Amino acid sequence: MAFSNPAVFLFGPGQAKIQDRPEPKITDATDAIIRIKFVGVCGSDVHFWNHGGVNGKFVSESSPLVMGHEASGTVHAVGSAVTHLRPGDNVAIEPGQPCRSCERCKEGLYNLCPQMKFAACPPDTPGCLTKYFKIPADFCYKLPPGVSLQEGVLAEPLAVAAHAVRMIGVKPGQSLVIFGAGTIGLVCGAVARLFGAKKIVAVDLLDHKLEFARSLNRSNTFKPDLSASPEENAARLIEENELGLGADAVIEATGAESSIVTAVHVLRPGGSCVQTGLGKPVVNFPILAMSEKELHMHGAFRYNQGDFKVAMDVLEAGTLPLKSLISHIFDFEQTTDAWEATKQGRGIKNMIRGYGFRDPARISHL
Amino acid sequence: MAFSNPAVFLFGPGQAKIQDRPEPKITDATDAIIRIKFVGVCGSDVHFWNHGGVNGKFVSESSPLVMGHEASGTVHAVGSAVTHLRPGDNVAIEPGQPCRSCERCKEGLYNLCPQMKFAACPPDTPGCLTKYFKIPADFCYKLPPGVSLQEGVLAEPLAVAAHAVRMIGVKPGQSLVIFGAGTIGLVCGAVARLFGAKKIVAVDLLDHKLEFARSLNRSNTFKPDLSASPEENAARLIEENELGLGADAVIEATGAESSIVTAVHVLRPGGSCVQTGLGKPVVNFPILAMSEKELHMHGAFRYNQGDFKVAMDVLEAGTLPLKSLISHIFDFEQTTDAWEATKQGRGIKNMIRGYGFRDPARISHL
Amino acid sequence: MAFSNPAVFLFGPGQAKIQDRPEPKITDATDAIIRIKFVGVCGSDVHFWNHGGVNGKFVSESSPLVMGHEASGTVHAVGSAVTHLRPGDNVAIEPGQPCRSCERCKEGLYNLCPQMKFAACPPDTPGCLTKYFKIPADFCYKLPPGVSLQEGVLAEPLAVAAHAVRMIGVKPGQSLVIFGAGTIGLVCGAVARLFGAKKIVAVDLLDHKLEFARSLNRSNTFKPDLSASPEENAARLIEENELGLGADAVIEATGAESSIVTAVHVLRPGGSCVQTGLGKPVVNFPILAMSEKELHMHGAFRYNQGDFKVAMDVLEAGTLPLKSLISHIFDFEQTTDAWEATKQGRGIKNMIRGYGFRDPARISHL
Amino acid sequence: MAFSNPAVFLFGPGQAKIQDRPEPKITDATDAIIRIKFVGVCGSDVHFWNHGGVNGKFVSESSPLVMGHEASGTVHAVGSAVTHLRPGDNVAIEPGQPCRSCERCKEGLYNLCPQMKFAACPPDTPGCLTKYFKIPADFCYKLPPGVSLQEGVLAEPLAVAAHAVRMIGVKPGQSLVIFGAGTIGLVCGAVARLFGAKKIVAVDLLDHKLEFARSLNRSNTFKPDLSASPEENAARLIEENELGLGADAVIEATGAESSIVTAVHVLRPGGSCVQTGLGKPVVNFPILAMSEKELHMHGAFRYNQGDFKVAMDVLEAGTLPLKSLISHIFDFEQTTDAWEATKQGRGIKNMIRGYGFRDPARISHL
Repeated sequence: MAFSNPAVFLFGPGQAKIQDRPEPKITDATDAIIRIKFVGVCGSDVHFWNHGGVNGKFVSESSPLVMGHEASGTVHAVGSAVTHLRPGDNVAIEPGQPCRSCERCKEGLYNLCPQMKFAACPPDTPGCLTKYFKIPADFCYKLPPGVSLQEGVLAEPLAVAAHAVRMIGVKPGQSLVIFGAGTIGLVCGAVARLFGAKKIVAVDLLDHKLEFARSLNRSNTFKPDLSASPEENAARLIEENELGLGADAVIEATGAESSIVTAVHVLRPGGSCVQTGLGKPVVNFPILAMSEKELHMHGAFRYNQGDFKVAMDVLEAGTLPLKSLISHIFDFEQTTDAWEATKQGRGIKNMIRGYGFRDPARISHL
Repeated sequence: MAFSNPAVFLFGPGQAKIQDRPEPKITDATDAIIRIKFVGVCGSDVHFWNHGGVNGKFVSESSPLVMGHEASGTVHAVGSAVTHLRPGDNVAIEPGQPCRSCERCKEGLYNLCPQMKFAACPPDTPGCLTKYFKIPADFCYKLPPGVSLQEGVLAEPLAVAAHAVRMIGVKPGQSLVIFGAGTIGLVCGAVARLFGAKKIVAVDLLDHKLEFARSLNRSNTFKPDLSASPEENAARLIEENELGLGADAVIEATGAESSIVTAVHVLRPGGSCVQTGLGKPVVNFPILAMSEKELHMHGAFRYNQGDFKVAMDVLEAGTLPLKSLISHIFDFEQTTDAWEATKQGRGIKNMIRGYGFRDPARISHL
Repeated sequence: MAFSNPAVFLFGPGQAKIQDRPEPKITDATDAIIRIKFVGVCGSDVHFWNHGGVNGKFVSESSPLVMGHEASGTVHAVGSAVTHLRPGDNVAIEPGQPCRSCERCKEGLYNLCPQMKFAACPPDTPGCLTKYFKIPADFCYKLPPGVSLQEGVLAEPLAVAAHAVRMIGVKPGQSLVIFGAGTIGLVCGAVARLFGAKKIVAVDLLDHKLEFARSLNRSNTFKPDLSASPEENAARLIEENELGLGADAVIEATGAESSIVTAVHVLRPGGSCVQTGLGKPVVNFPILAMSEKELHMHGAFRYNQGDFKVAMDVLEAGTLPLKSLISHIFDFEQTTDAWEATKQGRGIKNMIRGYGFRDPARISHL
Repeated sequence: MAFSNPAVFLFGPGQAKIQDRPEPKITDATDAIIRIKFVGVCGSDVHFWNHGGVNGKFVSESSPLVMGHEASGTVHAVGSAVTHLRPGDNVAIEPGQPCRSCERCKEGLYNLCPQMKFAACPPDTPGCLTKYFKIPADFCYKLPPGVSLQEGVLAEPLAVAAHAVRMIGVKPGQSLVIFGAGTIGLVCGAVARLFGAKKIVAVDLLDHKLEFARSLNRSNTFKPDLSASPEENAARLIEENELGLGADAVIEATGAESSIVTAVHVLRPGGSCVQTGLGKPVVNFPILAMSEKELHMHGAFRYNQGDFKVAMDVLEAGTLPLKSLISHIFDFEQTTDAWEATKQGRGIKNMIRGYGFRDPARISHL
């Protein structure tokens, strides 16, 4: 039997299979239908694979859901009002649709829209791990010349990074400490360089990740001493990197309590921290230090339009070996293998090919 | 023997006495010498009275210090370059002198100057509990017509409030929840009204404080249920006050862990919180909620120039019965009684008369 | 013959008549249909009445257009997804529909959407001078308790004012000069008070308008001397109103060249001006003064969501006698009389009753 | 007779000579005395050389003034409180001393201080064309490793550029048009690149300046057609450079009326323009276009601290061949030749050696 629009459905923890769905049709003049080519795997996919959902929202046998939210593809069809795309264009996808009418949407903070329909969110917003994916055309970003479809998948994590970097207003002359040298920490560094950050210090426990941050973003590096206190690690970080009274800004991309506390102590008076990593819901937090140094702590949740534009710019600049972030590419039918590899910490950014797509440049250096 | 410039020195926990000091002289063309008329008592004075210092900085028998940092007075003399003041003017005093040359000073954040000399800070910056107090004239604010010297003492806490309110950008149409209905919480409400806040909810455990907030600032009020969780209290606060998805902004003026956690849960997505209350150094903090709602948490430390101007405006507006905040006025010689009264929670804002000053309107309704 | 949905069409300069149109139907779940009750007359209506259009966009015999863009009314019907309105609610109407998808819309500046469909704009976006008017429900603002439908018409000019006031960041402690004491200048003053402006100076050539500004907004007033230069008038304005080095901010609501030049000279170094008045396309502008004083000049074009919320707040506050701004109310069939009266400068804000609506409180003090 | 501290004094238009002055002494613990090594020539020097002053402030036979305000040098001596400099350090000089006490200074806008003492401003603030120059040490910026004293002179124009670029908030993804490809226009481009500007279009009438902009800043270029209108030139610029609805931002660095008008028409709705060029005091300005497109026009006057830090970063980055901006270096005794050369348009940035200084690398490619 020929599939019309096959998709990877999650039915519960550890339970997924490919099933067919109706092929989407253009129903609105501003619609676009994308033939998916690559889908990235991120930590939240692994969380869904382990737990079947998040934050009290779960898939089930009776309510399975299509997974995937980091994707690139090729335009298959567009509505009559779409002028910036035509069939055959390669695009990156911004995977959430806000209501466009609420107070948050109208002030430009559409990532906070309470009616957001975000790809692969229970109960019923399907994700991108499907052959054809329908989306409003204004959430598709045409890939700049020279940017591959694989790199296009990095647009989503780059947009997360752009959102974080913009939240703390990184600008020329500033020093920035980034906790965590995984995908998000690394692309945060790349974005921060585009905004002119002067000195970047990458913090991680793993030498090879620090090495990668050094080569990717010309970062200084710092490996915390787990037997020392956060204050002691902060003091050593400041001294070794000549940060004077502390760093101008911090991106906390681990979610680990010890990093969060170290972040507070690493900042100079008046410094800013953005929390992008998600970890324990509740941590012991040095709030008195926040008050006395007049620090600014920001949550960062996903992204909005400007962020994908910045992501496109980083990709287009091409000065960064973003391809080296891409570790292994799995076929559509191996999706659960991709989730397992990521779960086991193999590779930096793993990807899944779209259904029926066989790209010539097969990367496999796991 | 006649005193030249008597001052209240703290020698250690519970040890204070009046001693003479040299009368200050104009040495710089921009100096001002103020004859102190009233000095307010605040929580930090009580902390010094109890512990002899704070944050590892302590007075001692061999290194006593003049106390007091909320003060009003009358201009006694000014340097030749001072044009906005003349002897006899009544003024409020901004009690910290920044270096004016560092990066923070030059960007307007002089409250974060690492070389700040703040009144009554160990080891050696004397406070205002003295007959004559020398200060650069630009840190003296002439009291507007109709504002009394007693009210002038409130300029300092009002400036703290202005700084907090400006930090979260309170503006017309917004809803604001203020945790704590003590002096700072109350004056924050007054300042927030000036900035156009639409709905204010005052939160406290004591009925009479809530009543006061209601009459002073037309605030709604909320009394937390100590047997309920912060989430439950937040949900009830939102519902009772029709805050929809939550409050636009929060001022946390208690420092209590349960208030801080409730504050996070009371905010709408994208909301802002400023922490003015100082309490435990470390609290259990719901950082995941901060991330997922993209909240903005700000420390606030003292004030800078614009803040005292706002304070003057609130005093001048005179629409608020600020006098009712002033509970009891002690003579200079009764300073330790004033500290004890405040320590025991008697009154809202207690004050001390300047040396040798006998104001006609003696307030005493303790 | 019974009309289904009568409307006032403009066919060209000085040519208008009432014709029927199809009654609108709910076609989208987020639609609202409003039974129009009052429509305000503004300067641009008079311009259309005189010239048949503006900016090269004109109505014609073959392409007539329904006029009107300041309106209030009662909800007649809503789509199934509308939750904040129900039939019978009184609302003010925000009369432009942006595309919600372009870069400007997504960053919250939807007033700059290049695909904006604004009421009564040629060639084909109909206005509000019709019995039933269809609009997305999120552009209808429920009138607060105690606010009349007549006052609701003022929401539109109040939103213009809110936009201008926000553009220059009016805040407590600031001095503000408003050139022009017509409807826009007056409501700008009301909004600026809500934002905490300390001192407002209203400038106009007509004594009775200045008197009105004084009573409405507690404004100082200034009448320029037409025989003096802009510099001289600016110097006198600054001196008489004790503005020191100049005003913190200016709202220029006349469009007159002499006012624009005076505005520049009235500002202090670092001050801000917003241009709301539309006059000559090109003026002699003192650009060197703008550079040397580092001034900030802003255009302001219509409004976006936050602005109507501020407008609702001003109306709800009710402290301002906004009713006194409403001069004369004409019947639907007298629409051209209303335009003529405004053209001749009779009254401050003239209004037109919706078709078939006879309000009990008939105001007529022209 | 040996000179103690020779200086170039201007006595009137076209009249200058070297005279001795007392050698400055450290009198304040925060003083620095700099042995001047290089002084740049800028347009305002030529204006003084032609007219003997500016803005009604003139030198005279009886009140001559030391010229020069773009300077680098070597630390000769510092006061006891100076910790960031030591004798022998090479520094760039920020040539204005604000009062540090007024409202503008305290909010970080010290460039607008009404009591600013700026080098080489009549009546009596001496400039840098002197052997030893005394200045508060916090206005000296240590040159980064690898930055020469000649390049250090460019810190001042780079700071002007940083101030302009910051005023319009240039950021990644943005398009920027720079009118004028002289020193300021060129260094504005270099700074804008550091801030992440995506597309820069340099506009000038001279081909070799455009060529220079292209090689220095990877700018697109545009040569206006003097027989076309500003609207026509703007339309062509937008089309040739694929700017869509217009440029995000403009730096106007010519002061020419036709450029200013073209700038307004080149901007997209909501765009920003900063005026750095000084030309005619009054120009015909298309204010209606500013209003209808909701543009933001900013004056920019000199710089403040962050700007010199950015300048240091551009110099340190070293990616730009800033040395190629330096055309010819004159000896101290040839100062008037340097002014004449600049007056006649010879070279891009001419410089003067400090008194008694003979640098090994003599540049002379005029």
